[in-house]
Amino acid sequence: MERARLRDLGITIGRYPTGRYNAITDVPGVLVGHSTAIYDMPRVARTGVTAIIPRHGAIWKNHAFAAYYAFNGNGELTGAHWIDEAGMLTSPIGLTNTHQVGIVRDMLIAWEREHYAREGMLLPVVAETFDGWLNDIDAFHITKSDLFIAMNRATSGPVKEGNVGGGTGMICHDFKGGIGTSSRLVELGEQTYTVGVLVQTNYGDRSFLRVNGVPVGAEIGPDEVPTPWGAEPSLQAGSIIAVIGTDAPLLPIQCKRLAQRATVGLARVGGVGYNSSGDIFLVFATGNDLPSPPDEMVTLRMLRHQQLNFFFEAVAEAVEEAILNALTMAETMTGHKGRTAHAIPLERLVQILEQHDALTVR
Amino acid sequence: MERARLRDLGITIGRYPTGRYNAITDVPGVLVGHSTAIYDMPRVARTGVTAIIPRHGAIWKNHAFAAYYAFNGNGELTGAHWIDEAGMLTSPIGLTNTHQVGIVRDMLIAWEREHYAREGMLLPVVAETFDGWLNDIDAFHITKSDLFIAMNRATSGPVKEGNVGGGTGMICHDFKGGIGTSSRLVELGEQTYTVGVLVQTNYGDRSFLRVNGVPVGAEIGPDEVPTPWGAEPSLQAGSIIAVIGTDAPLLPIQCKRLAQRATVGLARVGGVGYNSSGDIFLVFATGNDLPSPPDEMVTLRMLRHQQLNFFFEAVAEAVEEAILNALTMAETMTGHKGRTAHAIPLERLVQILEQHDALTVR
Amino acid sequence: MERARLRDLGITIGRYPTGRYNAITDVPGVLVGHSTAIYDMPRVARTGVTAIIPRHGAIWKNHAFAAYYAFNGNGELTGAHWIDEAGMLTSPIGLTNTHQVGIVRDMLIAWEREHYAREGMLLPVVAETFDGWLNDIDAFHITKSDLFIAMNRATSGPVKEGNVGGGTGMICHDFKGGIGTSSRLVELGEQTYTVGVLVQTNYGDRSFLRVNGVPVGAEIGPDEVPTPWGAEPSLQAGSIIAVIGTDAPLLPIQCKRLAQRATVGLARVGGVGYNSSGDIFLVFATGNDLPSPPDEMVTLRMLRHQQLNFFFEAVAEAVEEAILNALTMAETMTGHKGRTAHAIPLERLVQILEQHDALTVR
Amino acid sequence: MERARLRDLGITIGRYPTGRYNAITDVPGVLVGHSTAIYDMPRVARTGVTAIIPRHGAIWKNHAFAAYYAFNGNGELTGAHWIDEAGMLTSPIGLTNTHQVGIVRDMLIAWEREHYAREGMLLPVVAETFDGWLNDIDAFHITKSDLFIAMNRATSGPVKEGNVGGGTGMICHDFKGGIGTSSRLVELGEQTYTVGVLVQTNYGDRSFLRVNGVPVGAEIGPDEVPTPWGAEPSLQAGSIIAVIGTDAPLLPIQCKRLAQRATVGLARVGGVGYNSSGDIFLVFATGNDLPSPPDEMVTLRMLRHQQLNFFFEAVAEAVEEAILNALTMAETMTGHKGRTAHAIPLERLVQILEQHDALTVR
Repeated sequence: MERARLRDLGITIGRYPTGRYNAITDVPGVLVGHSTAIYDMPRVARTGVTAIIPRHGAIWKNHAFAAYYAFNGNGELTGAHWIDEAGMLTSPIGLTNTHQVGIVRDMLIAWEREHYAREGMLLPVVAETFDGWLNDIDAFHITKSDLFIAMNRATSGPVKEGNVGGGTGMICHDFKGGIGTSSRLVELGEQTYTVGVLVQTNYGDRSFLRVNGVPVGAEIGPDEVPTPWGAEPSLQAGSIIAVIGTDAPLLPIQCKRLAQRATVGLARVGGVGYNSSGDIFLVFATGNDLPSPPDEMVTLRMLRHQQLNFFFEAVAEAVEEAILNALTMAETMTGHKGRTAHAIPLERLVQILEQHDALTVR
Repeated sequence: MERARLRDLGITIGRYPTGRYNAITDVPGVLVGHSTAIYDMPRVARTGVTAIIPRHGAIWKNHAFAAYYAFNGNGELTGAHWIDEAGMLTSPIGLTNTHQVGIVRDMLIAWEREHYAREGMLLPVVAETFDGWLNDIDAFHITKSDLFIAMNRATSGPVKEGNVGGGTGMICHDFKGGIGTSSRLVELGEQTYTVGVLVQTNYGDRSFLRVNGVPVGAEIGPDEVPTPWGAEPSLQAGSIIAVIGTDAPLLPIQCKRLAQRATVGLARVGGVGYNSSGDIFLVFATGNDLPSPPDEMVTLRMLRHQQLNFFFEAVAEAVEEAILNALTMAETMTGHKGRTAHAIPLERLVQILEQHDALTVR
Repeated sequence: MERARLRDLGITIGRYPTGRYNAITDVPGVLVGHSTAIYDMPRVARTGVTAIIPRHGAIWKNHAFAAYYAFNGNGELTGAHWIDEAGMLTSPIGLTNTHQVGIVRDMLIAWEREHYAREGMLLPVVAETFDGWLNDIDAFHITKSDLFIAMNRATSGPVKEGNVGGGTGMICHDFKGGIGTSSRLVELGEQTYTVGVLVQTNYGDRSFLRVNGVPVGAEIGPDEVPTPWGAEPSLQAGSIIAVIGTDAPLLPIQCKRLAQRATVGLARVGGVGYNSSGDIFLVFATGNDLPSPPDEMVTLRMLRHQQLNFFFEAVAEAVEEAILNALTMAETMTGHKGRTAHAIPLERLVQILEQHDALTVR
Repeated sequence: MERARLRDLGITIGRYPTGRYNAITDVPGVLVGHSTAIYDMPRVARTGVTAIIPRHGAIWKNHAFAAYYAFNGNGELTGAHWIDEAGMLTSPIGLTNTHQVGIVRDMLIAWEREHYAREGMLLPVVAETFDGWLNDIDAFHITKSDLFIAMNRATSGPVKEGNVGGGTGMICHDFKGGIGTSSRLVELGEQTYTVGVLVQTNYGDRSFLRVNGVPVGAEIGPDEVPTPWGAEPSLQAGSIIAVIGTDAPLLPIQCKRLAQRATVGLARVGGVGYNSSGDIFLVFATGNDLPSPPDEMVTLRMLRHQQLNFFFEAVAEAVEEAILNALTMAETMTGHKGRTAHAIPLERLVQILEQHDALTVR
């Protein structure tokens, strides 16, 4: 059976409708690009870079309110201090492997300089998960080109998922993981807002994996599908990065609240935030314009706090589904030292959900 | 059918064994006492005070490392700033209604003064949820006596659950809520540690309620069991307080990590941290002695961070089960303005789980 | 020499002009009221309540963005979790002694109920410092009346300082302390904003006290003016609460930045945030209307971050001067157990500054 | 007059004695190394890397408790999320310019791999300030070699200050800034602990500069010593990084408290934490061994909170003096676009302090 997105398997998560592509790119202006490095010589590469670019690229000059939450901070997210201080995202977002966050971060500055010819300081935002099981990570494969390619390729529309970009070598719930995405529409009166999520999944114990509440992971034992660790002890260095965008007019303090709700989606799938995991959730909201340099006085709109309940539910649903899309789209991969991470078997997944009458739950 | 705890209904949550009483009192030295105010004249009282006392009462003089996490801070937890600063719990913990946190907090000082005759400042820890639907909260029913009774009655052993103490007038997932408790045992080598949880539940939408992953709430519609709100608009002022104790030797920074994992248990039951909800989780760890006044140099032990994964899972399980115990033990109650909150129907609950083959999930 | 405010002694702090009354009441709509309890029988009272009421009292229905910073959290500030979560101040602010924060907090609800007859939950904001050296604090002198009197007396215009309201029994830098206030005007283009500060001062070691950079405290030894502690060991339970209001249109994240700058003013006077000190700084900004219940969409204005530099400087100056006003306005007081806290000698203060040519520093 | 350290000018800050070298290297095991890039072709370099290595380099395998505080987070400190989560420093600390934090961070991993041949993930700690006024920062001068040289040169003993390493191109209070260091000894009973500070200074307005409380900056106008900005508008992108080490046995929560006290030292010199400034203070404490991989149970010692008052004062003093050492040791520098940052004139500085009788203040 070909890899497929969760909904294409007939499995529906939650109540809210999705956007057109069921992807973070459903948020108007959000572009996604991947650069993927898969080769075996001279050293094994199973890694890459994913770029998420708000405002059709104008984020450098028209910032977005933002906040993040670290459910378990065993990871890196550069640019975090200025997000904490100013509540603003001022750059595109890069995703890559743990040991090359730095080069991607610096080269985002180089990219900006080449395209805008500006001066002054920049504090780009780049996050990571650890692909050192399938990727020979200490070969430092990623270069300036990878970041530039990911940035230059970024487009709206459908987003590639699974073994692609920053997610190339990732492992999730002891299956092959990677990039996943999903979106939800929130109607408030006559206005419809979009919440989009993109995750880079590299966390979790199989026995905890649940789909629509059904303990799928416990039913697919290592005898049926081997774990990636084989006879070796697991590095236990998993993580999940969730990037959540919305076109709603949210303040930084409201973005923070959305970021915390990614925990709900993660918990529904079976995440508990292990010690070795960098579970960091970033939210940006483009509903207000924040030109840089700013006007003397900035005029803003803010949804009232009570209305956020809908967004809390939408974030939880979209994170849940984005993780599952990463699992169902990722393909079995063999990499560094001949290790193999197996994809979750799709027919079996559907079968288990049918047995529990849980393909769709209101 | 008589009210019963979840396990007595044949429903088991999670993998870890419980302590003897499946209660926070399984943590050595932890005592719990309730004072309950239920009367109709001159004004309707459906409220009370619950006291949780670590170290057999010696917590005033032998502090415990502690931390808290506010998943949604629409609530009060006094004493929080000193917990943030010093990482220590220095008093028993009171639970009551939203509008009388203050008197309970001040009277904890009075209680200490009467029993220890000490001087100096105290910053007691008291939390709340809002019982203003069933309780005429602005009558300010709680007095010094209520706190003193709860403190003086506190014992080890079984803990009363449901409509008792601070939980008397609470509503949870549109059923009658209140106090619930549970515990888990974590074995590390030859050592067994206990994690105990007590919750005061007053949050949630029924349609999200899940038990062992099964969407129970969605299956018991308002036609079958009316919601408490009837034709009135809901006040939407729900909350959940979780108090989590352990005898493991954890540092404050480790207590914080456990506190964040209460979110996982809450999310599994169906909580999303609504705007109106004060979802605050407090963790204390008695595995190190912290005498006050302290010795010049304090000697401590600390579990290594990697070992916390077991505690993360145990906290998630125990919070999940404590919430469900509050639901299955609470009885239908009629209160202020004749409003009624209905108890969750137990036979129906068991039936739904049987249908989904989910009485026990590994 | 009669007690006087610092500027009336010819001593000027900083560069920014003050408002009309050099008080927090210069912020349009901010009212201050005190209730003072000074008596010796049956037990010695040297305590009180101070109420700070934004928006001429309408703060209950028209909230203000707010944030706080705990430089050292050995103290209580109720209502803090909702300020963290929502970024809003939703009640007047009470100041009192450490052991009666609770009653003042609950009775703010009672006051609101009597005046507005509303329902629903409230989370009032009350802070404290410890007056247990001069006040027999465990007599619990403060009652509902004290809070109601402070609220009902609250007015705009000049603010009483020194031994009044919540500051009645306080001690600062080993001199008599209490309530102090100050304000600054910030001009941005054609617009003038006001920053007002009110402090309740009860912290500090004399030898660190500086005025305009001059080490005044080191020059006035205990031989010249005895410390309050006499032969007894100090309780070392000091604190400083600073309430900072402004009519500028600041977001919560910007209020937080102002709150952190109170540390600069405190440090200039000689504070280092001792372990026993509850040094908590609360900022509210009334430049945006936040009606409750809110409109569907709230329209806001925000100063750009770069403009905050002026407010940072203004906050530092006004906190510095408010602390010094508390010292120069407080009078020598004898209280509990016959203990005496001496006022700072004003002629000597002026003399020392003259010697250092530091009455005014640009 | 040759450049000199503050004490060699006869100016003494504070009460506590210094360590042997009055440097962060007085903390046993702490090494410091610099790599400095000063050249004009093909593009102007005025930049470098400074490495601070605790435990004689064993920090990779024997971690140290740590915490940080961002007084104003307009800057980068990588590795911060794991410090927040685990309370541990697990790598040496790098300091460099804003646009090359990334390469220095990644190459710290490369350095570790070459020297220890280990596997697994690393999250190195690197901070920055912006030298883009004197350095052609977008030429990205720093390479792997610079980090390796700084690491390999690191030694105990005297530390070079001023225009060296990461501080090469920095500007402070409108004079030439750079690297500065200082230390203090804290005696507790029979035990003496060391607090060492190293700062990279690149912040501040001249008119606020104070030395021992004396407004030195206001007295040395731009007519006497030109500012670096000349006729150009300032980039206003200043910052100060303070790295604070101690051999005291402090918990993470106690390190955090020390980090916050760096604000006091900064405020005494005249810092107010401008919007454009990344004022981030990192504290590590080597008084407990934290082997990695850890033992099952870690045994620790902790100073009692009350004893921290001495450390609070020592941190404030050492930060104050380290900043001033950076100023008095830095030499006038001309760089990018022919811009010049002038050193503070030392004879004039001494003269002003003599006039105010402030060479030494108890």
